[in-house]
Amino acid sequence: MGSWLIQNATIVTVDENNTVLPRADLLIQGSEIAGLWSGDQIPPSISADRTMDADGMVLIPGLINAHTHAAMTLLRGYADDMELMPWLQERIWPLEMKLEADDVYWATLLGIAEMIRGGVSCFNDMYHFFAAAAQAVVDSGIRGVVSGVLLGFLPNAEDNLKQAIAFAEEWRGAGNGRLVTMLGPHAPYTCPDHLLKKVVAGAQQVGVGIHIHLSETAGEIEDSQRDHGVSPIRRMEELGLFHVWPVLGAHCVHLTDEDLEILVTHRVGIAHNPGSNMKLASGVAPIPRLLAAGAIVGLGTDGPASNNNLDMIEEMRLAALLHKLHTGDPTVVPAPQALAMATRGGAAALGLGDLLGQIKVGLKADLALLDFTQSHLQPRHDVVSHLVYAARAGDVRTVFINGEAVLLDGKLQTMDEDEIHRQVRKSVDRLMR
Amino acid sequence: MGSWLIQNATIVTVDENNTVLPRADLLIQGSEIAGLWSGDQIPPSISADRTMDADGMVLIPGLINAHTHAAMTLLRGYADDMELMPWLQERIWPLEMKLEADDVYWATLLGIAEMIRGGVSCFNDMYHFFAAAAQAVVDSGIRGVVSGVLLGFLPNAEDNLKQAIAFAEEWRGAGNGRLVTMLGPHAPYTCPDHLLKKVVAGAQQVGVGIHIHLSETAGEIEDSQRDHGVSPIRRMEELGLFHVWPVLGAHCVHLTDEDLEILVTHRVGIAHNPGSNMKLASGVAPIPRLLAAGAIVGLGTDGPASNNNLDMIEEMRLAALLHKLHTGDPTVVPAPQALAMATRGGAAALGLGDLLGQIKVGLKADLALLDFTQSHLQPRHDVVSHLVYAARAGDVRTVFINGEAVLLDGKLQTMDEDEIHRQVRKSVDRLMR
Repeated sequence: MGSWLIQNATIVTVDENNTVLPRADLLIQGSEIAGLWSGDQIPPSISADRTMDADGMVLIPGLINAHTHAAMTLLRGYADDMELMPWLQERIWPLEMKLEADDVYWATLLGIAEMIRGGVSCFNDMYHFFAAAAQAVVDSGIRGVVSGVLLGFLPNAEDNLKQAIAFAEEWRGAGNGRLVTMLGPHAPYTCPDHLLKKVVAGAQQVGVGIHIHLSETAGEIEDSQRDHGVSPIRRMEELGLFHVWPVLGAHCVHLTDEDLEILVTHRVGIAHNPGSNMKLASGVAPIPRLLAAGAIVGLGTDGPASNNNLDMIEEMRLAALLHKLHTGDPTVVPAPQALAMATRGGAAALGLGDLLGQIKVGLKADLALLDFTQSHLQPRHDVVSHLVYAARAGDVRTVFINGEAVLLDGKLQTMDEDEIHRQVRKSVDRLMR
Repeated sequence: MGSWLIQNATIVTVDENNTVLPRADLLIQGSEIAGLWSGDQIPPSISADRTMDADGMVLIPGLINAHTHAAMTLLRGYADDMELMPWLQERIWPLEMKLEADDVYWATLLGIAEMIRGGVSCFNDMYHFFAAAAQAVVDSGIRGVVSGVLLGFLPNAEDNLKQAIAFAEEWRGAGNGRLVTMLGPHAPYTCPDHLLKKVVAGAQQVGVGIHIHLSETAGEIEDSQRDHGVSPIRRMEELGLFHVWPVLGAHCVHLTDEDLEILVTHRVGIAHNPGSNMKLASGVAPIPRLLAAGAIVGLGTDGPASNNNLDMIEEMRLAALLHKLHTGDPTVVPAPQALAMATRGGAAALGLGDLLGQIKVGLKADLALLDFTQSHLQPRHDVVSHLVYAARAGDVRTVFINGEAVLLDGKLQTMDEDEIHRQVRKSVDRLMR
């Protein structure tokens, strides 16, 4: 690892005051942000192995995709515009039954290539063949939180949990600390109480967090009331799930007042997935209410079979637009709040707020640089507004993760995209047979 | 004008059967599509001045932005996340008072550059200084429908109407037929009956269509009921507005059953603007109901001060997502329907269905070619799904309009973008003073 000096960028720090530095310099040393100077404040003594003139560019904290199933790139566009259960039962699950570890490795790499190209420096993943996903994180240079999906109704669920616990212990910190592991019980409605209790014990024993789907559809809530007499979130609290920290709850669409209080009290991280919730007609998560109550909210794309991309800039825009419409109030989820959810909020939701999510000296050098010279970003009244309401994933030119340039002026430095596309086509050919 | 042969493209025709040709060749001669051959059907005798290998690319009809105010690029990001009336009264209108023709010319060119780069070959514009916008259409090579905005409450409204009628007559067909003119009474609530009657007479006399905002916000409907005893759309019918054809009604969010019937009966073109309606919290247009009733529906971005871009791929995606969520039915507005609204539907809504909106021999050669080799479009289960749910404006590499290559492999052929950005900055500097 070396050092980089990025000069003359507009730096959107996403710190607590949403500070924007119109012209600033940033020093990367090793894996960290080592210096940040506004205007002409940089001391003449500062130098670095490599220098980059970022005039006309906007530097932001790397975007954090707080909930996805990256390997579902395999199924992108394979089945759309369907009801949830036929979609799962007739289309998605039959193909997933045929998956092998290699499919997941290459499909996760494909998702990582897309994410890095779109300014994502960290993603939170839950899928089958978790070691393959973890290997893709290590090999690609991205930062990733990986949990194996645990489906409690499978006959080998207990064995799967043991493997997941062993994986979480063995793999954490791999790739120079870029890999974070969690346990991934799929959802309250797919996991029985006795398994969830073992998940809690396992997470506490190993010292890792939990990634779980929470209250995504209205039907789940009804079923939980019928079968358990309480909401899924209340049930998780009673089972002790929220004594683990961090817990990342994906979706949180259908919440009672009590649910909302539980999430805030236990500092549960929430991954809001507006694109997926819209496409699957799941409903609207009460994000303005959650934020007002002090909840920790990040943004996620969900898997690319239900989105159908891994574009966090689009997800920011959807979050900002959706809640204005839903509340009838055009002032809710303003641009700075949408950007904060996609960065600082996501980091906090994953328990990584001390390391990621802002541009600040001492934090990890996870950064994305966007070309703001293009026509769709002119004129430049407000760069934060442009990031949320006008920019596109394709505007990202350079991405640093853990201090390494993984995308440099539009070229991926750590991955062979042609080979990835070829391997994914091979997997798809086999799955379709 | 010469001829072009585009070879080996996947061609999404957007014809009535939504035919997709996985590998096909297309011949452009002059301003028209002169030949279309699937597989290896092209006769060996066919040749052209220029040939393009489009392997890995997807060719679609040029996207049609059915409602915008392109020159509002000037105010992109200048004021967001505000209530409508303070936004207009405190931010937008004071700046618009200071506008000059040159501002509109350059700002319209900026919008056109963005639109062409995003695959838009035709846009329907309404703004001040309409001759400047028309000149931008002529100079840039895009196809444009231009109407001057008529605000009936202005003291010089009658003079403005006379000028608008003269403009419509004088300018139509300019730029080798690329310029279409209409009259643009702003909205029922800004135009008194006596002016609207003159608009109808003027449109019929000159033989042009009308572009008008219709029933965008709930407040308009209440005011119309109070002041006129009927809905705005019923009032327009009674005033004879819908005897003109084509009429393009932008928004149509808040409709009674009777309004819906009126729109269908009179073949009123509807421009649906999901991004703007979400951002301004205007409400949700009943698009699935309108389509089921046989209404003619296109898509628009609205102005970039309330969107904040001119990205029709995003607008397709928003349309497909929004109505799934709003109806609770994930099967409504499937991908082919969203794509049809952005092409065939927009052409029909503007009264140009015989010329534009599909890839078919004899229609105008208005085409966009997208690079489908990128990671976010892999694998390729379904190109129409990818266009609507995964693609981005930046994937467009080449655009033909009226048979001319206006964007060729990512380079604008007819515009100096640096000069446009410079002139727009100059305008902004003056307006902000």
